Amino acid sequence: MDKNTFAPRPPMGWNSYDYYDTTVNEEQVKKNADAMARCLKPYGYEYIVVDIQWYAQGAGSQRDMFQYIPFSHLYMDEYCRLQPDPQRFPSAKGGKGFGPLADYVHGLGLKFGIHIMRGIPRAAAQQHMKILGRTETAADIADPSSICGWNPDMYGVREGEAGQAYYDSLLQLYASWGVDFIKCDDICNTNLYPHRPYSARHEVEMLHKAIERCGREIVLSLSPGPALLQEAAHYEQYANMWRITDDFWDNWPLLKDMFSRCEAWAPFVKQGCYPDCDMLPIGKVGKGFGHLRSSNFTRAEQRTMMTLWCLFGSPLMIGGELTLMNEQDLSLLTNERVLSMLDPAIVPRQLQRTEDVALWLGEEAGEGRRYLAMFNLSDREQKVAASGLWPGRHRLLELWTGEQRALLEGRIQEVIEPHACRVYQVVE
Amino acid sequence: MDKNTFAPRPPMGWNSYDYYDTTVNEEQVKKNADAMARCLKPYGYEYIVVDIQWYAQGAGSQRDMFQYIPFSHLYMDEYCRLQPDPQRFPSAKGGKGFGPLADYVHGLGLKFGIHIMRGIPRAAAQQHMKILGRTETAADIADPSSICGWNPDMYGVREGEAGQAYYDSLLQLYASWGVDFIKCDDICNTNLYPHRPYSARHEVEMLHKAIERCGREIVLSLSPGPALLQEAAHYEQYANMWRITDDFWDNWPLLKDMFSRCEAWAPFVKQGCYPDCDMLPIGKVGKGFGHLRSSNFTRAEQRTMMTLWCLFGSPLMIGGELTLMNEQDLSLLTNERVLSMLDPAIVPRQLQRTEDVALWLGEEAGEGRRYLAMFNLSDREQKVAASGLWPGRHRLLELWTGEQRALLEGRIQEVIEPHACRVYQVVE
Amino acid sequence: MDKNTFAPRPPMGWNSYDYYDTTVNEEQVKKNADAMARCLKPYGYEYIVVDIQWYAQGAGSQRDMFQYIPFSHLYMDEYCRLQPDPQRFPSAKGGKGFGPLADYVHGLGLKFGIHIMRGIPRAAAQQHMKILGRTETAADIADPSSICGWNPDMYGVREGEAGQAYYDSLLQLYASWGVDFIKCDDICNTNLYPHRPYSARHEVEMLHKAIERCGREIVLSLSPGPALLQEAAHYEQYANMWRITDDFWDNWPLLKDMFSRCEAWAPFVKQGCYPDCDMLPIGKVGKGFGHLRSSNFTRAEQRTMMTLWCLFGSPLMIGGELTLMNEQDLSLLTNERVLSMLDPAIVPRQLQRTEDVALWLGEEAGEGRRYLAMFNLSDREQKVAASGLWPGRHRLLELWTGEQRALLEGRIQEVIEPHACRVYQVVE
Amino acid sequence: MDKNTFAPRPPMGWNSYDYYDTTVNEEQVKKNADAMARCLKPYGYEYIVVDIQWYAQGAGSQRDMFQYIPFSHLYMDEYCRLQPDPQRFPSAKGGKGFGPLADYVHGLGLKFGIHIMRGIPRAAAQQHMKILGRTETAADIADPSSICGWNPDMYGVREGEAGQAYYDSLLQLYASWGVDFIKCDDICNTNLYPHRPYSARHEVEMLHKAIERCGREIVLSLSPGPALLQEAAHYEQYANMWRITDDFWDNWPLLKDMFSRCEAWAPFVKQGCYPDCDMLPIGKVGKGFGHLRSSNFTRAEQRTMMTLWCLFGSPLMIGGELTLMNEQDLSLLTNERVLSMLDPAIVPRQLQRTEDVALWLGEEAGEGRRYLAMFNLSDREQKVAASGLWPGRHRLLELWTGEQRALLEGRIQEVIEPHACRVYQVVE
Repeated sequence: MDKNTFAPRPPMGWNSYDYYDTTVNEEQVKKNADAMARCLKPYGYEYIVVDIQWYAQGAGSQRDMFQYIPFSHLYMDEYCRLQPDPQRFPSAKGGKGFGPLADYVHGLGLKFGIHIMRGIPRAAAQQHMKILGRTETAADIADPSSICGWNPDMYGVREGEAGQAYYDSLLQLYASWGVDFIKCDDICNTNLYPHRPYSARHEVEMLHKAIERCGREIVLSLSPGPALLQEAAHYEQYANMWRITDDFWDNWPLLKDMFSRCEAWAPFVKQGCYPDCDMLPIGKVGKGFGHLRSSNFTRAEQRTMMTLWCLFGSPLMIGGELTLMNEQDLSLLTNERVLSMLDPAIVPRQLQRTEDVALWLGEEAGEGRRYLAMFNLSDREQKVAASGLWPGRHRLLELWTGEQRALLEGRIQEVIEPHACRVYQVVE
Repeated sequence: MDKNTFAPRPPMGWNSYDYYDTTVNEEQVKKNADAMARCLKPYGYEYIVVDIQWYAQGAGSQRDMFQYIPFSHLYMDEYCRLQPDPQRFPSAKGGKGFGPLADYVHGLGLKFGIHIMRGIPRAAAQQHMKILGRTETAADIADPSSICGWNPDMYGVREGEAGQAYYDSLLQLYASWGVDFIKCDDICNTNLYPHRPYSARHEVEMLHKAIERCGREIVLSLSPGPALLQEAAHYEQYANMWRITDDFWDNWPLLKDMFSRCEAWAPFVKQGCYPDCDMLPIGKVGKGFGHLRSSNFTRAEQRTMMTLWCLFGSPLMIGGELTLMNEQDLSLLTNERVLSMLDPAIVPRQLQRTEDVALWLGEEAGEGRRYLAMFNLSDREQKVAASGLWPGRHRLLELWTGEQRALLEGRIQEVIEPHACRVYQVVE
Repeated sequence: MDKNTFAPRPPMGWNSYDYYDTTVNEEQVKKNADAMARCLKPYGYEYIVVDIQWYAQGAGSQRDMFQYIPFSHLYMDEYCRLQPDPQRFPSAKGGKGFGPLADYVHGLGLKFGIHIMRGIPRAAAQQHMKILGRTETAADIADPSSICGWNPDMYGVREGEAGQAYYDSLLQLYASWGVDFIKCDDICNTNLYPHRPYSARHEVEMLHKAIERCGREIVLSLSPGPALLQEAAHYEQYANMWRITDDFWDNWPLLKDMFSRCEAWAPFVKQGCYPDCDMLPIGKVGKGFGHLRSSNFTRAEQRTMMTLWCLFGSPLMIGGELTLMNEQDLSLLTNERVLSMLDPAIVPRQLQRTEDVALWLGEEAGEGRRYLAMFNLSDREQKVAASGLWPGRHRLLELWTGEQRALLEGRIQEVIEPHACRVYQVVE
Repeated sequence: MDKNTFAPRPPMGWNSYDYYDTTVNEEQVKKNADAMARCLKPYGYEYIVVDIQWYAQGAGSQRDMFQYIPFSHLYMDEYCRLQPDPQRFPSAKGGKGFGPLADYVHGLGLKFGIHIMRGIPRAAAQQHMKILGRTETAADIADPSSICGWNPDMYGVREGEAGQAYYDSLLQLYASWGVDFIKCDDICNTNLYPHRPYSARHEVEMLHKAIERCGREIVLSLSPGPALLQEAAHYEQYANMWRITDDFWDNWPLLKDMFSRCEAWAPFVKQGCYPDCDMLPIGKVGKGFGHLRSSNFTRAEQRTMMTLWCLFGSPLMIGGELTLMNEQDLSLLTNERVLSMLDPAIVPRQLQRTEDVALWLGEEAGEGRRYLAMFNLSDREQKVAASGLWPGRHRLLELWTGEQRALLEGRIQEVIEPHACRVYQVVE
């Protein structure tokens, strides 16, 4: 199996976190899947991902005090494998796990993904629970000094055969459910350990091996960021996506900051290897967090975000509730000209970046497609100019507006509103 | 209660760690207490301290793999309070805890101390066990993100009334046992959290308050080091001793390094407030670690250590097994002239320190006692000189040898062997 | 000579920096000296200190671009010793240096101080200028890799006899002028070198030795801060004052922050050894910086500042222009009750500090004076309480208002305005 | 001009530093050029580079005290442009600079390079010397707070038109001499400033622009390392080579360490963009340093080094004296099979790395060349195995020995001596 073929283009889909936090339920997942099948599937969106703590009883019920309730009841089977909370996911009853829900999603022509925390439940280690097919117990493979700094559920797993057997058993179960995508958390940057931020390196390898052994093509996505540049080769070898930023939200400084992250990671975008800019906070977000709102991003900022994500080649995971998208939201997400850039054949490259301006190119090998994006990163309208572009005479198509422009002698100049962009394809 | 009166001079005693690691048992503690009562008590030694994991079943039985067995059985009562392992401490059976052993030690005219890890057992949090006198449970007061980096037993306790009640219940129990000294670990420097090394500051305060409330004069000793200079005032306010170094062993670079630590901490030595240089690895040490040996320190280095500890004013906790001390060991520990410096009335001050030499003074206010110590920190014999000392003509007594010398015009010069010292008292 | 006798109490005086930046001239210095002699001398103020770049031609003339003009002309004698700019200090003509101005200041019964940068002029090194009494030149003793990060004038001086000779020649000259106080900059914390912040440690020692050799009692003050706690013993041995903060200005967060600095440094306040909170930005300040203003501190904040500086034992160097002080400014600076705390016999100690409150005690040994200060650090009026104070019944005198209060059972409580304080002396 | 065409393959040549330190002279450069033309040119070696301080009078004459004599005389023209020391480079007399020597080198069919320190001579700034074509002087463009931590010659140049004019004048001069290659130092990582290690970013841009303006294709090489991964895109845009390590010498830990550096930088190797592993210390080295020796590397280590440098795509700059190479040295440097890997068309990729083993692939796009290198990084002989290689049946040619092997099912295993390697090309 070659993990680079599991997702030949950057994964596109929806993730429950930005809207539901820890609280999403089966009905809500299905409704979002329905909405995706109806409106977004034709444009390439296909993953429906259930984010954190689907296994935790009462998740979200003490939101004023805790995002994740400490020492709360986690559903699991006899082999320490977490199971969906049957209150929220009734179809999981009887040990069926996410099988029925995955079937539903597959029935719509979509793919099904889940979030996991790296490691093994702390409760399982404390109770010396069994590992499938091994004499060792959870107490033997759990590393009591390896925890997540922000979620209380798990211990990291030690390197070794027994630990691998645990991960193998996990993936075997997920494969039997029909899982297509795993977002594993507290693994890309184990930020509790500032001097060893990639302390779970061996768990990435174990997950990768377990995926290979399970026989199902499961995309592996690593969180949270920022991913570590010096570990780029390792991510590339073992994972499909890795988060290059801490949680991204609808806040301009975070978006502006993404330009430097994308600059650093651009050389690592390849088929099957996607540095990940995180979810798109578009439409309605924040309900589970107690801050239900329409995205704080202006339309200009939303275009800037979509343009950067697509040209750079980031996965496109929608964070907003799909059933509440309005026309403008949908048109933003489904502009086929813009989405055409989301292709590993397009090589992204930042031409220039200052406090005020960013210029990016995307070019296909040979005589292929060519794109230019110009971003006004400043807080005022200004002229943005690029030069030294493709020589000769060309016609450019602005992808958001459909307007055309001439490119002469490789120079172009535009007046652009604050936080806005222009993105052109060379059409002639 | 004024905690500064609990130990008017730096505590002197024995601690089980350097010889037994986690394995010491009742019989061994008693034998050491007997030996102390017989040979050391006349010189001021009085504390018998049982170090780490007296509550852990099978402690030390997997020493090739773990110093502290993860998720092993910890004896505790219904209120999450750890109890002595009854296999190793038979007198603890029937809920008597360390009461009988403390009685035994008291019967010898000595004092009894125990080691604790800050926090509440992880197993208790997982099982939502009760807190004495509260409706909250262990799950409510345990902080799942506050762990020790090197010992798997506990979670830190959150600030608040319920957490205070837990510490109060702990001290109430210890007081009922007759505990005189608590060495609390993972609290002076919570080194798993390099950006928040005093993250358990509130637990120091809670311990202090619990001691005040328990009505017994219990000395509070904080570990491990290095203590943080910028927190000196806090240690001073709430504790009696705080470790200024990570674990100290019989190794010259560690001893040489202690001179700079003592230099920085000298201003903080006062009655009831003792920066702590850690145990004295003298005699036989290392058995529980699988490295039984006579101290690697030469006799010269041992004198250097005793001289620095005494003049500086560090607590004197013997690490070696007392029943195996030889005459030379004992004479080192019981030199009354040297021990006379161990008095908060003597103000220590480093005069000079280079790579090769250290000079220290100890002076009593008024016309009191005056001491001078000269240390050869280099690896070869050399002349060590001091000048600018007390003017006029004086007679000096070398405390280790009893030899006398004249001090003229405040100058003295000696040829000193490598790693050795001379320590003088002004006698006239 | 014992440097601890040069300034038996924390130095009090005026410094030209806060008002004049680099531009002060002879006339202005004299006017400030006159004002001090008239109004402040009776209260203990005595030092008149000329701050940075008195030797630089055109200092301050390019203030929009540079605080310190790079490679500008520095007046110096043939032995690399900087001389006052004769345009600004006409009495210095004819090689008389600061002699005449010092005479003037002395004539008023005051003391005279100057600022210097550690090291030797870069221009002198480049030109291989002579060192008095040595065959080596400036090029031999200047360390080309030791510079100040914010001032372009000097190179650090290498350790060794030739370097010592240079510092000796410097102090010999200053002594001949009648200098009583030297504020040496870029030496307490060489902050260009974050990994070696005390890289000029040897220059502190050389300065100290040069002062001893010059035969004049010259107070040595080290800047800038923050001083390094782990070097406390070194500052104590070689200097009289050391800055515990970077430049302090009339800005509440800086003042609030000073409480934690004073907490850490309180144990180091002794006769002749003064951790330094920096100048008092009171009255008119900022003219040379292009921001002439009355101090941004409210009256409440100014009292808080004076109270902390005095109780802690910081030197009191006035930053505002003395000729422009109004009655309120003067009354703040000359409250004899408050100034009575500024005495190394009073031992300062912080009792408590939170985000909102600070409580400090100052106590004299024996049955001496006792002070309590209560600070409201929050931004709203609140009750501030202290308990566990001196037992029995006492009468307290509030030092700013003269009001009296009873202290019963060691408890007191006051409603205090935001950023304000109460400071009491036990009078009975 | 497209800087990526200046050196279509990683530059190969000789650099005077490893053997001569600062002392090389014209005769010695010529002898090395002669030797290169005779023996190495047929294999692609072509650059003759004169390393540091060719402009400094008496360079190397105080080697026991200084590598670079502070404030020594530097030859320069009236526009602050450094000139070769005429004692060592007699042909430079009469203002001819390196013109005659470059001519000599060109006459042999080779290319000529020089080392420079970024910035402008400190002496020039101090003397306010002229900038060609500007009214500003050296004092205006020199930044007095921007120095090199290890070399005393220069100040960094401020951003701006006058600074650009200086760099332009520099490159104009170098171009007139016929310089083909510039190794600029203290620029890739300005390590005196640990918090701003790329503080000379603008000087890289100015140098690049000056090269474009000078009209000559001059390769730009940046030193010292380690280069900063997060600045990869910037190096790529403005330079041809950048050092990924601090100075490399004949010492196994440094060589072993290079594997992780190459792993991180492999994605950035492209035509015209060469992460640089530094000079090859082969043959005789160290004379100018007072440590004349034959390379400390064993033959096995030398092959490991050459294999890694070539497969990775590092420039190949010989450090040893060319006139003293023996047959074994030359055969190491001129193995055509090994050198065939040194081609940006070969994409390097590390397959695996542990403490003991490294496996690398080099593959050409399409059906191009394929290489496999297996390294034993441990200190003992061991079996090294690779699997998952190209499927089917292949014949492999070992490039150093010419031996052949079969590759079946993508697996291979070899017993390899300590620190040695095997490198195979797929030949069928």
